[in-house]
Amino acid sequence: MSFNTFGQSFRFTTWGESHGPALGVVIDGCPPGIPISAEIIQRDLDRRKPGQSRFTTQRREDDAVKILSGTFEDERDGLLKTTGTPISLMIENTDQRSKDYADIKDKYRPGHADFTYQQKYGIRAYKGSGRASARETAARVAAGAIARLVIPGVTIRGSLVQMGPHKIDYANFDWDQVDQNPFFCADAKAAALWEDYLDGIRKAGSSVGAVIEVVAEGVPPGWGAPIYGKLSADIASGLMSINAVKAVEIGAGFEAASLTGVENADEMRAGNQGPYFTSNHAGGILGGISNGDPVVARFAVKPTSSILTPRQTVTTANENTEVMTKGRHDPCVGIRAVPIGEAMLACVLADHFLRHRGQTGREGGVGY
Amino acid sequence: MSFNTFGQSFRFTTWGESHGPALGVVIDGCPPGIPISAEIIQRDLDRRKPGQSRFTTQRREDDAVKILSGTFEDERDGLLKTTGTPISLMIENTDQRSKDYADIKDKYRPGHADFTYQQKYGIRAYKGSGRASARETAARVAAGAIARLVIPGVTIRGSLVQMGPHKIDYANFDWDQVDQNPFFCADAKAAALWEDYLDGIRKAGSSVGAVIEVVAEGVPPGWGAPIYGKLSADIASGLMSINAVKAVEIGAGFEAASLTGVENADEMRAGNQGPYFTSNHAGGILGGISNGDPVVARFAVKPTSSILTPRQTVTTANENTEVMTKGRHDPCVGIRAVPIGEAMLACVLADHFLRHRGQTGREGGVGY
Amino acid sequence: MSFNTFGQSFRFTTWGESHGPALGVVIDGCPPGIPISAEIIQRDLDRRKPGQSRFTTQRREDDAVKILSGTFEDERDGLLKTTGTPISLMIENTDQRSKDYADIKDKYRPGHADFTYQQKYGIRAYKGSGRASARETAARVAAGAIARLVIPGVTIRGSLVQMGPHKIDYANFDWDQVDQNPFFCADAKAAALWEDYLDGIRKAGSSVGAVIEVVAEGVPPGWGAPIYGKLSADIASGLMSINAVKAVEIGAGFEAASLTGVENADEMRAGNQGPYFTSNHAGGILGGISNGDPVVARFAVKPTSSILTPRQTVTTANENTEVMTKGRHDPCVGIRAVPIGEAMLACVLADHFLRHRGQTGREGGVGY
Amino acid sequence: MSFNTFGQSFRFTTWGESHGPALGVVIDGCPPGIPISAEIIQRDLDRRKPGQSRFTTQRREDDAVKILSGTFEDERDGLLKTTGTPISLMIENTDQRSKDYADIKDKYRPGHADFTYQQKYGIRAYKGSGRASARETAARVAAGAIARLVIPGVTIRGSLVQMGPHKIDYANFDWDQVDQNPFFCADAKAAALWEDYLDGIRKAGSSVGAVIEVVAEGVPPGWGAPIYGKLSADIASGLMSINAVKAVEIGAGFEAASLTGVENADEMRAGNQGPYFTSNHAGGILGGISNGDPVVARFAVKPTSSILTPRQTVTTANENTEVMTKGRHDPCVGIRAVPIGEAMLACVLADHFLRHRGQTGREGGVGY
Repeated sequence: MSFNTFGQSFRFTTWGESHGPALGVVIDGCPPGIPISAEIIQRDLDRRKPGQSRFTTQRREDDAVKILSGTFEDERDGLLKTTGTPISLMIENTDQRSKDYADIKDKYRPGHADFTYQQKYGIRAYKGSGRASARETAARVAAGAIARLVIPGVTIRGSLVQMGPHKIDYANFDWDQVDQNPFFCADAKAAALWEDYLDGIRKAGSSVGAVIEVVAEGVPPGWGAPIYGKLSADIASGLMSINAVKAVEIGAGFEAASLTGVENADEMRAGNQGPYFTSNHAGGILGGISNGDPVVARFAVKPTSSILTPRQTVTTANENTEVMTKGRHDPCVGIRAVPIGEAMLACVLADHFLRHRGQTGREGGVGY
Repeated sequence: MSFNTFGQSFRFTTWGESHGPALGVVIDGCPPGIPISAEIIQRDLDRRKPGQSRFTTQRREDDAVKILSGTFEDERDGLLKTTGTPISLMIENTDQRSKDYADIKDKYRPGHADFTYQQKYGIRAYKGSGRASARETAARVAAGAIARLVIPGVTIRGSLVQMGPHKIDYANFDWDQVDQNPFFCADAKAAALWEDYLDGIRKAGSSVGAVIEVVAEGVPPGWGAPIYGKLSADIASGLMSINAVKAVEIGAGFEAASLTGVENADEMRAGNQGPYFTSNHAGGILGGISNGDPVVARFAVKPTSSILTPRQTVTTANENTEVMTKGRHDPCVGIRAVPIGEAMLACVLADHFLRHRGQTGREGGVGY
Repeated sequence: MSFNTFGQSFRFTTWGESHGPALGVVIDGCPPGIPISAEIIQRDLDRRKPGQSRFTTQRREDDAVKILSGTFEDERDGLLKTTGTPISLMIENTDQRSKDYADIKDKYRPGHADFTYQQKYGIRAYKGSGRASARETAARVAAGAIARLVIPGVTIRGSLVQMGPHKIDYANFDWDQVDQNPFFCADAKAAALWEDYLDGIRKAGSSVGAVIEVVAEGVPPGWGAPIYGKLSADIASGLMSINAVKAVEIGAGFEAASLTGVENADEMRAGNQGPYFTSNHAGGILGGISNGDPVVARFAVKPTSSILTPRQTVTTANENTEVMTKGRHDPCVGIRAVPIGEAMLACVLADHFLRHRGQTGREGGVGY
Repeated sequence: MSFNTFGQSFRFTTWGESHGPALGVVIDGCPPGIPISAEIIQRDLDRRKPGQSRFTTQRREDDAVKILSGTFEDERDGLLKTTGTPISLMIENTDQRSKDYADIKDKYRPGHADFTYQQKYGIRAYKGSGRASARETAARVAAGAIARLVIPGVTIRGSLVQMGPHKIDYANFDWDQVDQNPFFCADAKAAALWEDYLDGIRKAGSSVGAVIEVVAEGVPPGWGAPIYGKLSADIASGLMSINAVKAVEIGAGFEAASLTGVENADEMRAGNQGPYFTSNHAGGILGGISNGDPVVARFAVKPTSSILTPRQTVTTANENTEVMTKGRHDPCVGIRAVPIGEAMLACVLADHFLRHRGQTGREGGVGY
């Protein structure tokens, strides 16, 4: 993908640094006539917003979104609707502490993009990590909220399925639990155990990684495209582009490597509505194209690099030193990655819906 | 990515079906003046070529590449060189058995793209799976051979690191072993054990998945780009676009989820040549930009769907039936995915090299 | 547009030099299920083919097109149809005279791309002008033939409307005349006069420019897109990308500069089928979007640079000299630009049809 | 080009309607380390700003630009510099009269995009013409101001060269005159005559078209790219994408059609700095690549559609009626198109500079 733009037909471009006046996103290619409101977008943003529990950064940002363009009140029904022109959304940064940045100005934080931005550009907005800050993900979530409106028949949900080494038990999986705990976790029992675990990590001045699963139900067969435009390839690109993500898998994912062809193949049966699959190792995607089953993806988020434990590093003048990141940071950035992952999946699907409709004139498959 | 094209500045477009007259690739944006020959490309193609051991399909294809455009003999030194215009490469299909396709014409093979192509397009080239055939990957390997020439300071190698449930022992890892066994495996001991294992799988009429690791050494700091053009996101897209791939990870990958921030952060030390990292959990990429360490990626290939064991499926008329794929197929398509993965990594890196040079005027980082 | 690729949703990539083994085009994004044949494409190619009258180059090329991929025989009706995957078309070069290229190898021909290719790339395929040869346009015409099939309700035709200083009389305009003279000219009287005129130019060892008008009828309202994806902007880009083209205009074009707002505005009236326009200064495009009227564009082709008259130039070593191009050249390349202009217009329209359908779900306007 | 985004390597996306809260542009791919300030951008914006003479719309907009992202103060020299990340610029709309829009809500203005937006999208932001308003061009001018900084060795200037039927006399051409009259006209005598002429047009409630010439000096040989990425094709696309533009030409343009090959070819001579051309019919571009001569383009702007003279039209319910546009409008929108044309030329050149540097590693040609 090209720099700060994602998508082909439903495409968005994000901008903004952590400590600039604002951040935002411009969404281009959105279909016209879709009822929209700042509230709908805000609802998704609020799920990603920091400071909602003791397990996320205490930075207090309202993350209040403003719609700057691309909508108009339809006089026939009084509803605000998309016009088909670029939708510009802006979120102002309000809680930028005027703190001492001496440390991160002159030292590279291990695991952070400090060193690579400096090497690439020769200059970096070190305050709040600039463009490399997780605040950029608010813009994606806003784009994702609109993407969901483009494909109203598709339900996209996510759950934390692993925190540190602790995995959920899929036997307990219940989507209704996701909003009942501070971890967006569909396994209530796991979530309960994680509270203590994460408190320990936090108090130790450390952090921990996580795995998130995102699922899209209601995707018809036919979305996606060979070969480099595979639905799976675009999902991989979209999820891997999220800060701190180091791995992505579809369906059985890495587990598929351990299976035989006999075990892995999802058998088909004739149903009243056409063929159906008796299992979903494929994660809803065959040959890069959706098969009608739920699209299932998982991604791994590394532990937050900014920790209170001193780590060895070098100065920008290449001298040995130590660094310890004070500031306000998430002990597990994976938690807030749940709505972000949902947003990216929504954007990929909305994009492929429009691409499929463009090429074939259909909204889904040909039917059996 | 857009349909059948991959890359931004170094971009290639592939075409061709398994049972058409030929397949090929057009590479656009290649720098001019690079010495090139069909032999260089052929060397990589021969590594991917089927029929080289009993562990790959017995289809016999020479995979002889023809350069149709984009090169010219430089009269100053008599060398064939790239001209900066599109390089068109073609590989003719020679071994297309005129066999009975009745089965796969009317039945959907579980795990295959038969059903999804039919649903998307309403028509499919069922012979040899058409565009969904792994033969398409020959075109990528050809593109990758040229990509390597664009970044001559970078060494890209791959190894099978897992076959079915059997992982290599990294203590035995030796790149020199890769060409000494039929599995492109850097662990000679593991490779020896896999021979018996895969024979068993093959004789049982089944197949098995695999994990491949690809590594690029010599990548300077600074390649890649925030946010959606992250080096990691493009690698994920490129590897996930390979047939049968279901998972991709960078550096520590999914393992990073289990680590604490203290464990995962790669500490830095001052060296004579500038800062260096004492570990490489990052897989050479921080914030989507290369950090100078080896770029390390792994991807999982699912077991071949085309197996000799009968599986339940439906006909194109939505009637229950069984299908068993005769034909010539790889018991472990992951083996031949090694040179393909290398090729995709080479293409992503060549692309980002050109993009970085375009934006910054430098070939690497600013130096410390 | 990006290097050698044109279009977004209906996109094609061309490759090949004048004196290489072949040239070709890969078309990606074409809708599936469209009946197609080599004959349909050949018909358009034959119109562009050299050597058909004394007014075009005597190079003899069959320009026989081969379909290498992207089609399949639909067993339901026995027709060859597009499959939705890349369509690769190839045309072999057959008449490459093994002539003496010493002159153009060491000298820059005025008005030619020799100098700029050399400056840009440091190497150039000087034989037959390599990639800068008008032979590349055969690939466009092939793509255009397929584009026409994507928008069967649209009729695209072209006419030479000016040769040198001699313009046609629009009072004589009759599309049926276009194929009755060697100039693709809709004004039979003008064409008759041009024969003598062009004979004179040819015998004088010179060449002359031309203006071509291309018209698309049957385009519904709604194709095109603000702001940089304007239908007019893409037509301008497409036509200006043709060899030797130096100017493009839509509707009234440059003449619009001389008009007042009162004169230029196309008034509207209520018709049974909805509003219609009483004039078409707009050339069928308002705000970058088609308005239902015929889309009208004109473009100017400069005189062939390769002429038999000696001109002052320099050697590649920057020494003064003269050059005279022998070889076989068109005295008026504008003639063969007629089918090329039609092809580019067809490609732009097919692209915007798919883009419009993708974004809105409609094939045309909402209706009145 | 894709919807609301222009460019490949230096790319910008604009957003915003005439009567929304603001409009803006996001510039992506800008090189890092370039000193920048709001003042530099404002200087170009002020040239385009309405209300500066009686010949432009009396709408009073400050067009004050805010830099929202992509810059950082370089502590080494205290200068604000680009960081290589997206530069977001915003201009708030301040003078939106709460006037009666009943007329344009229900009637299509001839020559306007009202009808086509309605047909395409089924909804349109009729207030102030929404996205089709010329206010969008402020965003381009802002992007162009930054593009100029990317190619500091290139000087880009423009002049009105024709108003209505009245052309300038090139014998009087003097760039220093451009800022001395309200028409950005390099011919002081013509400008003096135009004052009376345009006053007459304005008082008659009409409007008039214009032709603008834009020239880039200092472009080295080698920028641009075959075939669809021709410098000329991208200039054509960029200029044609400006509101109300109906024609574009390069160098001799349409006049080239009337010339013979002997007349049109720009001969070359050996100079101390390498070859030079004795004329510039090519407008600085050969084969789509810059040749080192000034890049010269002209474009025609149609007369403003919004005029005080009643014109026949239809209602949105397809009933015959008349419309007369009150409001505040430019009698000759071509005037303010001068800085806009310069901006688009600057953006195309900056883009091709980066693309050329990416592919070849050079900033210009190889030298002679």
